[in-house]
Amino acid sequence: MKKCLLVTCITLALSACNEPSNSTDATNHATSASSTKDAQSKTIAGNEVLVSNEQELKSAIKNAKAGDNIVLKNGTYTDIKIKFYGEGTEQSPITLKAETAGKVFIEGQSNLVLGGNYLIVDGLYFRNGYTPTKTLINFKINDEQIAFNSKVTNSVIEEFTQLDRHTSDHWVELWGRNNELSNNYIAGKSNFGPTVMVNLKGNQHIKNHHQIINNHFGPRPRKGGPHGETLQIGNSYTSMTPSYTNVENNFFDRCNGEVEIISSKSNYNQFKNNVFFESEGSLVVRHGNYATIDGNMFIGNGESEEFGGIRVVNTGHWITNNYFYKLTGEKFRAPIAVMNGIPKSPQNRYNQVTDAVVAFNSFVETPTPWYFSVGSNVEQSAVLPASEIRSARPTRTVFANNSIYNTDTAEHPIYNYDKVDGITFKNNFSNNANKTGIATDGIITQAMTMEKVSQYLVVPTTNNTDVYNGFDFDKITTDLLGHERADHKAVGAFISPVAKGTSLFDRTKYGTNWFVAEKEAKEATTFKALTTEELTQALANATSGDIIELTAAEYTVDSTLDINKEITFVSADKENKAIINFTSADTAFSMQPKGYLHLDSVIIKGNNKQNAFTTLDKNMSKAYDLSIKNSTVSNFISVLEVSKASFADNITVEDSVISNNQNGFILNKENDDKGDYNVEFLTITNTTFDNNAGLIVDYHRGGYDESTIGGNFVFENNTVTNSGVKGGLLMKNRGIVKVSFANNTFKNNPVKLIAILWGEKGQKPINNTMVNSGEVEVVQNLEMKLMY
Amino acid sequence: MKKCLLVTCITLALSACNEPSNSTDATNHATSASSTKDAQSKTIAGNEVLVSNEQELKSAIKNAKAGDNIVLKNGTYTDIKIKFYGEGTEQSPITLKAETAGKVFIEGQSNLVLGGNYLIVDGLYFRNGYTPTKTLINFKINDEQIAFNSKVTNSVIEEFTQLDRHTSDHWVELWGRNNELSNNYIAGKSNFGPTVMVNLKGNQHIKNHHQIINNHFGPRPRKGGPHGETLQIGNSYTSMTPSYTNVENNFFDRCNGEVEIISSKSNYNQFKNNVFFESEGSLVVRHGNYATIDGNMFIGNGESEEFGGIRVVNTGHWITNNYFYKLTGEKFRAPIAVMNGIPKSPQNRYNQVTDAVVAFNSFVETPTPWYFSVGSNVEQSAVLPASEIRSARPTRTVFANNSIYNTDTAEHPIYNYDKVDGITFKNNFSNNANKTGIATDGIITQAMTMEKVSQYLVVPTTNNTDVYNGFDFDKITTDLLGHERADHKAVGAFISPVAKGTSLFDRTKYGTNWFVAEKEAKEATTFKALTTEELTQALANATSGDIIELTAAEYTVDSTLDINKEITFVSADKENKAIINFTSADTAFSMQPKGYLHLDSVIIKGNNKQNAFTTLDKNMSKAYDLSIKNSTVSNFISVLEVSKASFADNITVEDSVISNNQNGFILNKENDDKGDYNVEFLTITNTTFDNNAGLIVDYHRGGYDESTIGGNFVFENNTVTNSGVKGGLLMKNRGIVKVSFANNTFKNNPVKLIAILWGEKGQKPINNTMVNSGEVEVVQNLEMKLMY
Repeated sequence: MKKCLLVTCITLALSACNEPSNSTDATNHATSASSTKDAQSKTIAGNEVLVSNEQELKSAIKNAKAGDNIVLKNGTYTDIKIKFYGEGTEQSPITLKAETAGKVFIEGQSNLVLGGNYLIVDGLYFRNGYTPTKTLINFKINDEQIAFNSKVTNSVIEEFTQLDRHTSDHWVELWGRNNELSNNYIAGKSNFGPTVMVNLKGNQHIKNHHQIINNHFGPRPRKGGPHGETLQIGNSYTSMTPSYTNVENNFFDRCNGEVEIISSKSNYNQFKNNVFFESEGSLVVRHGNYATIDGNMFIGNGESEEFGGIRVVNTGHWITNNYFYKLTGEKFRAPIAVMNGIPKSPQNRYNQVTDAVVAFNSFVETPTPWYFSVGSNVEQSAVLPASEIRSARPTRTVFANNSIYNTDTAEHPIYNYDKVDGITFKNNFSNNANKTGIATDGIITQAMTMEKVSQYLVVPTTNNTDVYNGFDFDKITTDLLGHERADHKAVGAFISPVAKGTSLFDRTKYGTNWFVAEKEAKEATTFKALTTEELTQALANATSGDIIELTAAEYTVDSTLDINKEITFVSADKENKAIINFTSADTAFSMQPKGYLHLDSVIIKGNNKQNAFTTLDKNMSKAYDLSIKNSTVSNFISVLEVSKASFADNITVEDSVISNNQNGFILNKENDDKGDYNVEFLTITNTTFDNNAGLIVDYHRGGYDESTIGGNFVFENNTVTNSGVKGGLLMKNRGIVKVSFANNTFKNNPVKLIAILWGEKGQKPINNTMVNSGEVEVVQNLEMKLMY
Repeated sequence: MKKCLLVTCITLALSACNEPSNSTDATNHATSASSTKDAQSKTIAGNEVLVSNEQELKSAIKNAKAGDNIVLKNGTYTDIKIKFYGEGTEQSPITLKAETAGKVFIEGQSNLVLGGNYLIVDGLYFRNGYTPTKTLINFKINDEQIAFNSKVTNSVIEEFTQLDRHTSDHWVELWGRNNELSNNYIAGKSNFGPTVMVNLKGNQHIKNHHQIINNHFGPRPRKGGPHGETLQIGNSYTSMTPSYTNVENNFFDRCNGEVEIISSKSNYNQFKNNVFFESEGSLVVRHGNYATIDGNMFIGNGESEEFGGIRVVNTGHWITNNYFYKLTGEKFRAPIAVMNGIPKSPQNRYNQVTDAVVAFNSFVETPTPWYFSVGSNVEQSAVLPASEIRSARPTRTVFANNSIYNTDTAEHPIYNYDKVDGITFKNNFSNNANKTGIATDGIITQAMTMEKVSQYLVVPTTNNTDVYNGFDFDKITTDLLGHERADHKAVGAFISPVAKGTSLFDRTKYGTNWFVAEKEAKEATTFKALTTEELTQALANATSGDIIELTAAEYTVDSTLDINKEITFVSADKENKAIINFTSADTAFSMQPKGYLHLDSVIIKGNNKQNAFTTLDKNMSKAYDLSIKNSTVSNFISVLEVSKASFADNITVEDSVISNNQNGFILNKENDDKGDYNVEFLTITNTTFDNNAGLIVDYHRGGYDESTIGGNFVFENNTVTNSGVKGGLLMKNRGIVKVSFANNTFKNNPVKLIAILWGEKGQKPINNTMVNSGEVEVVQNLEMKLMY
């Protein structure tokens, strides 16, 4: 099985396998969240029925009684719709399990619905397919048949993603009460819609006390717009409901779908002891109130600004004992982002933050942990209606007993977008001076002696016992590691001393007992291609990660090259680059899902009748990447022309020449103005554009939604000459949030405008040289289409 | 003491004493809500300190220890500010009590604040004064000194109302947690602001579990606009907070302040076994969710449309075991009014109704118990912004196991302002056919045999056991009388049989153990006045309710007659009416707080330089009434000219002549457009208006707020001739909600318009005769000023 798994997963290596495994052998401190119902130990033996096809399964379910065990024979089940219903009991649940966990594959257009009481699903592996409905695993069959006291456990959902990224679904929908999603590995959802959704629409589903515990949420790729949450609990329409969902001891591993990893939109949810590992987003209490956010770990790398922490909206959240390590995000992705609200906010917008408590947290190598009045947009009153203006500052909120430690000088623990007048700061400590002028009494400068007890875990050697006793603080009974605070007073998330070697988390302890998320790295194969035939044959034979070395001086290709894996084309002699002449009627390279094309020191040349790179028109189920380095692209209609549903993670152009094309990089098809865009990072540096007749870049993101904080466009150190339409615009980047535009030279371009930058997002031209080339315009407030 | 009380209260008779006492001697069914802390039985004796002035009290409080008992010596304490603080314990509270309950009078500009733990205030009588601050009894001293586990009990607040009705205050503000307001009598608040307010602004005040129990909320006069609630729990800004206030076993006795008797604006409040007796308003779950409304009694008289029931907004309310008797209110005052919401409503407006459960209620002699989509205003889109349009119909709501009984034919149990598509009707029963075409399967026609077991209580003789078992219905464990439902299935609020003589409620069981709310009726004295001197002397000597009989033919009065009590002027010979000629420089009659003037068969005549009736410019602390019957009012500037803060309950003119005046009834001074108005009921019938130069009526209410559902203007069977300004308007009633305009004759009035009626409120001219007199215009949608 192990071997089979490796083969199966090899093409998935890029998104799931490029992380060195954590080799710490220290035991995991955190007691795993306990399952409410451990069937194995309590089951009173009923019948065991082995089934091997859908018909037998149906029959077995129909006849199942409390205590029965339905066993799915090992094998692959394609296009199967499992309707699992029955009335188990706490002592005698009805179980549907794999003969061998991980050896029952659910593939094709399949799904699973549950309804009844005390049902357990165990050990299934969903892969190579997608649900034909709106939900893959649904804890209700219909409004009358709802699951209660049931669980899906020890299973895997891997890239069971829709063919079209725009098709919306959820992989798991929790309904009913007291259900459990535990010890699963869930990764690779690329399409529209939260991975896991807790629904609260109806009295049967409130006070649900669902347990989402011990799961490994593996990488969720960037989506390029909203609706890419890993977990959402409720929505704005049910945001007044008491939910009581417990999200505990999960590993959120590079969950990069969007700015919200978790979107809590209901009341009284608990988020406890979860790890957010290098995940490009935040735990967001978006709607609803009185969340408990205790003992979570947010792990960054000290470089990426994409890794977030906790974003706070609404009332009464208690944020305690959390650990923030090497986080450098800002604004919406700040370690702690406390938002401004809209006065008397509409139900689906932003309520004011009130009555929050942020206490006993530790911030290590996190220079600016606290952002206040995030989202303040009073200055945009001209382009926004009053009902969108976030002017209500946080109030009745306490920051106390927090610890901030930075090795390097970090004298701005606070960043504020508005007056900070509603926060009480008490007994917070930093080893650096606080030069913000805010919370001058409430953040006390104090030297700290720290020690690194294991990877990611840096704690003070001694306790700072100068603890503020706020209202109800006696209910914060333990520290992050579960040690009793009654025994030791200590500022921050940890009571010292922490034993040397204590690991902050052990990633092997999350998810199933059988699935290995981290694949072994594959050795790349290099194919040498002396002829066009060898080139196309090498492309056909290569597996992901392989290299095709161009040993001839010139090739002529009269077909489209399909790129559906990671492939590098590189000239054998980088000083004498190989030329590939395309005579194909259609595009030169067809970028397909998970296609990652790396052109290194290659000249590609068209016949002025086709595009250099396009995407599939349909079924762009997953992202692709394109890297052009030290190469030349010329004589095409467009260099890159994408389809609407396509999405690239990275398009990188460096040290290259783009010349004699009609257009450059055309990424403007996501034009619904709902916050979506076609590429996350478009980076063009040290590149020469010459004699391109139209737009050299068209990169679009539409719709007013400040929480969609991409895309990212870097245009630096380039030279652009003789390009663009007379009197027109040379490059478009409308609605793109992050733009860096510096050190470029524009010369003899007949355009009126080179680019329009968005002042409110901090965009400005820096050190560009413009000769006979039009101007760069900065518009302070861009008028966008309202999305809500 | 008893005698003293009677004397003291005699002038209050009108508002508080005109109700026959309930003479039933049956025991009260309802177990009185139990106090969380019964100090008397548990107190461990501490020091007892007798104090007799503010200084001694201060000192005693300062020195008080747990278990201490501070006793206020009997007497009157004027202008006293009591700051009661200390740290009692559950076993040993600190008590501040009257030497004899009811013999300690707090008067003048006085108030009481509490802060600390386990404090008890017992037996005080607040009267003849008002608070100089915003709160009379405040369960906090400041934001740091808050009361917990404390109570005010066995006390009276009677007409401790501000001099100016516009001055805002609360009589009781609850803050902190676990406080109690129990066994008090509280009545007669005329000014702006809820009588009792529960505040939730801050974590110290949520999950408060306050007990508001066993109180007698005596009459609260009509306010003439919003902000006249008897109890409000939270506000829209704290409507997301968990409150858990328990309002149990209170008697709401003619609480007529405004359309909301109770305004619940927070979550998880309970309203249990309260009596709403002939109270002109409703229990309204205005903001917040998941209220429990169980076992309450709503008692009407089968005639007044002012007595309401329960008005439902928001999510998840459970309305069970309630009893509705002789209720004929409609729209906002329907027995059950389920509102339409605003989609994605702003925080302070109307959320959609979802997930409500209305089950096991009994409706007796209540012809149309259920109103759906109340407040729907889709048709007013032209005059209202989108954010004010209530178009979201109730959804996911269950009506089940309710019983409807009407002796007379009542075939329309439902009134709907929009489609009824979100309500599930199950096993409701009515003894009349349901001809609404709605809920045809869900309201089952079935004969019922009923019996009257005591006053107000009519129940079926046998149980209808055809009960629907909805989700979580097993949590409805008892009926209204506390009998276990597990033992007997029964539709409706009562399990039959109910023992003959069982009383629904016993009004003597509410409030204090010493105060008698119902005063003995006073015998009226008749003063015969033959001369002007005798007339003025009689007015000076009369007590409220007395009669002045005019035995002469004519009087000349050259001073203003102050009316500050109930007085009737009546001609000895009604066929030959006495004439009172006013030569006074100022107004003829000065209407003052609680002045009730009845002119019966009298001619009053001015000198064209003064008004006939005016109010005080200031200090119109309480309402006045004016009744003109079979009388003539002539030769005045205005008949009635009011001041802004004045308010009349009733102004009635019948069978009279209003002639040769400049203006008629000028009630237009409440012009802030905040929903207020100057008179509740203006009724003019069978009256002749002749030769009045200006407006004959100007009655104004401004501001768009559908929940302000007054004033009330009846203009029927009148004749108006030779009146009004040429080309102008004869009478104004802008913004008045209820207008009846019928059977009048208008002749030779030089005006362009007689009146403008408001079509959307159902106003229309009926059977009027107009000769040479302009027209009546009907405007469908009146554009008003937005209040929110």
